[in-house]
Amino acid sequence: MKYILPKGFLAGATHCGIKRFKKDLVLIYSKSDSRAAALFTKNKVKAAPVLVSKGILKKSEPIRAIVVNSGNANCCTGWHGVRDAKKMVKAVAENLNLKFNNVLVSSTGIIGKRLPVDLIENAIPKLVKGLSVNGLKNAAMGILTTDKMRKICIEKFVIEKKDITISGITKGAGMVHPNMATMLCFIMTDANIDKDALKHALREANEESFNSITVDGDMSTNDTVVLMANGMANNTTIKKGTKEYKLFLKALKSVMWKLAKKIVEDGEGATKFVTVTVKNAKNTVDAEKIARSIAMSSLVKTSVHGENPNWGRVASSVGASGASLVKPNKFEIYLDKVCVFKEGHFTHPSKERLHKVYKRKNVDIMVNLNIGKKHAKIWTCDLSKRYV
Amino acid sequence: MKYILPKGFLAGATHCGIKRFKKDLVLIYSKSDSRAAALFTKNKVKAAPVLVSKGILKKSEPIRAIVVNSGNANCCTGWHGVRDAKKMVKAVAENLNLKFNNVLVSSTGIIGKRLPVDLIENAIPKLVKGLSVNGLKNAAMGILTTDKMRKICIEKFVIEKKDITISGITKGAGMVHPNMATMLCFIMTDANIDKDALKHALREANEESFNSITVDGDMSTNDTVVLMANGMANNTTIKKGTKEYKLFLKALKSVMWKLAKKIVEDGEGATKFVTVTVKNAKNTVDAEKIARSIAMSSLVKTSVHGENPNWGRVASSVGASGASLVKPNKFEIYLDKVCVFKEGHFTHPSKERLHKVYKRKNVDIMVNLNIGKKHAKIWTCDLSKRYV
Repeated sequence: MKYILPKGFLAGATHCGIKRFKKDLVLIYSKSDSRAAALFTKNKVKAAPVLVSKGILKKSEPIRAIVVNSGNANCCTGWHGVRDAKKMVKAVAENLNLKFNNVLVSSTGIIGKRLPVDLIENAIPKLVKGLSVNGLKNAAMGILTTDKMRKICIEKFVIEKKDITISGITKGAGMVHPNMATMLCFIMTDANIDKDALKHALREANEESFNSITVDGDMSTNDTVVLMANGMANNTTIKKGTKEYKLFLKALKSVMWKLAKKIVEDGEGATKFVTVTVKNAKNTVDAEKIARSIAMSSLVKTSVHGENPNWGRVASSVGASGASLVKPNKFEIYLDKVCVFKEGHFTHPSKERLHKVYKRKNVDIMVNLNIGKKHAKIWTCDLSKRYV
Repeated sequence: MKYILPKGFLAGATHCGIKRFKKDLVLIYSKSDSRAAALFTKNKVKAAPVLVSKGILKKSEPIRAIVVNSGNANCCTGWHGVRDAKKMVKAVAENLNLKFNNVLVSSTGIIGKRLPVDLIENAIPKLVKGLSVNGLKNAAMGILTTDKMRKICIEKFVIEKKDITISGITKGAGMVHPNMATMLCFIMTDANIDKDALKHALREANEESFNSITVDGDMSTNDTVVLMANGMANNTTIKKGTKEYKLFLKALKSVMWKLAKKIVEDGEGATKFVTVTVKNAKNTVDAEKIARSIAMSSLVKTSVHGENPNWGRVASSVGASGASLVKPNKFEIYLDKVCVFKEGHFTHPSKERLHKVYKRKNVDIMVNLNIGKKHAKIWTCDLSKRYV
């Protein structure tokens, strides 16, 4: 009951043989036509399924299904790879009696190895047969690679007395970074929402979730976020800017933010969840540069891991960020709300206060630049031995 | 005999009490007036000694001495810090009978702690007394922080039958990055060379040495490279563009490149020396972005450390570099000269060849973009458990 799919959606997973034992092939299916919005990696080297799915979305046909394999990224596999990704789409379309352009495809796993597409084709009839309203948990398991746990999040809200559900699953760990690296996320909703509103909501929610996390600074070739809305809640079509749109956006943001948080917490070897906030920058670009510079500094990460409140490393990251406007005598540093740096020097807080810094699982690093009104926030994890 | 200083230079080091036991205060002195050129960190948060030395160099007076302490960076120490750095300069000037503007100052160590400047002032008479033509080794020891070994390099060459010596010492480790992070380098020469030529040579040699290394991607607040030339070799003044200038530049490059290499080899926990080369990019900016993206990828570094020829991580870093022009079907990847990726897919080299990749201490990663004529080269180390 806990892990429910929105009305009209089915999901399932199976083991086709890419991985040795674990589930490695997932199918998500909507009984009725869905509108879909998607975001893909900005990496110049894009995996074949990214290229194929982008092409299919351009046709603007209804999306009915997403097929996903884990264990093999089908990336750097040349024209073979594109053909293999198309074979996956075709096999699903045939088995579900859909058109080619109704099906999206996604892959995650090792780069550069040919996809064993015959194994996938052989498994698809079984996968289709196994589709179920209770399939979300299996689907969430089947898309994982090095993740330690499955990541599911569900929000429910009411519009015009109709229950609306948004259910999302994601995988991450390893190379997670802004621009959504090595990250797959599939979100299903039964809301009736127009395409423009859907796109807009996905983009906005993504900025405050997957695009605001960093684990180790790399950006992958396969990152994909898909949002499918099949309208089976039967509400009046949600348009951009309305009260209903705001409700939808709020729920979507909640789903995506919680999923992104799960990715950070599952970062390889992570022991702490770190929130980096930059306040009062001259402009947003500077605020983001500084927040990312702190969040990506391996020296800051290791000091968080070691629970050593070395604020000098934070100060150095502020200066090294490439931000165009930083005034060394004006900015302040707060570690877990303790002000440690102000007016160009250490503030000498009490030993008791300093001793508490970085001790909790949730750690806050805040820099107040005091020269403007723009803010930025980034979430990351510490760097522990288990990563290497 | 091995670690000689150029004619007219003396050096020495002592323990003044910043560190518990090790030498922490260094002095370099020229018996006659020197021309000096220097490069400093681009970090917006600059340590007090950087600000003070920059001010002194602007006066364009002859430079006669450099005083350096280790164990405390005198950074983020507000106006106190600037006063303390000036006190160091003043104490040295008084003890050596020089003017304030004849002495440079440099610090390295922990950020944010007040400098115990009285300890330094007290130790300076002893430090001056201990100056010696054999003091280079002690000076090289005294500037170290977390480095595992001292770093010295000397080149000799002949101009007009006059022996010319260039002797350099450096410290690094930890936060080393392009822009010369947490790195001090002091180079002395008895060449007679004019100021413009000196500046130009330092800048050019720096590009191909300290600015081409990265260890962990952070950029420090104290980075300083100083080159002093006292002319005591009595050669005719070297001018830019001459045959003699080329000889000087070649020797300087050799000194600085060898010192930079020692920093990479001493990177915290480093077990491999990695050369990343990018060839045939459309422009130099792209070539450098890609080389740095590969060299700074923790996934590439860990795969080098594990001797696992995971070229997919290299391909992904090429795409994630932010370079504006990359053609996924055109670029090639060579690991230790074995071509692993070409025309968009894996080349299937023999297991014997692949098995050798990343096994040696010196590892080569080469990317041929095949779309232009510009190249870039970056040196880095692997990432091993000892770092964290």
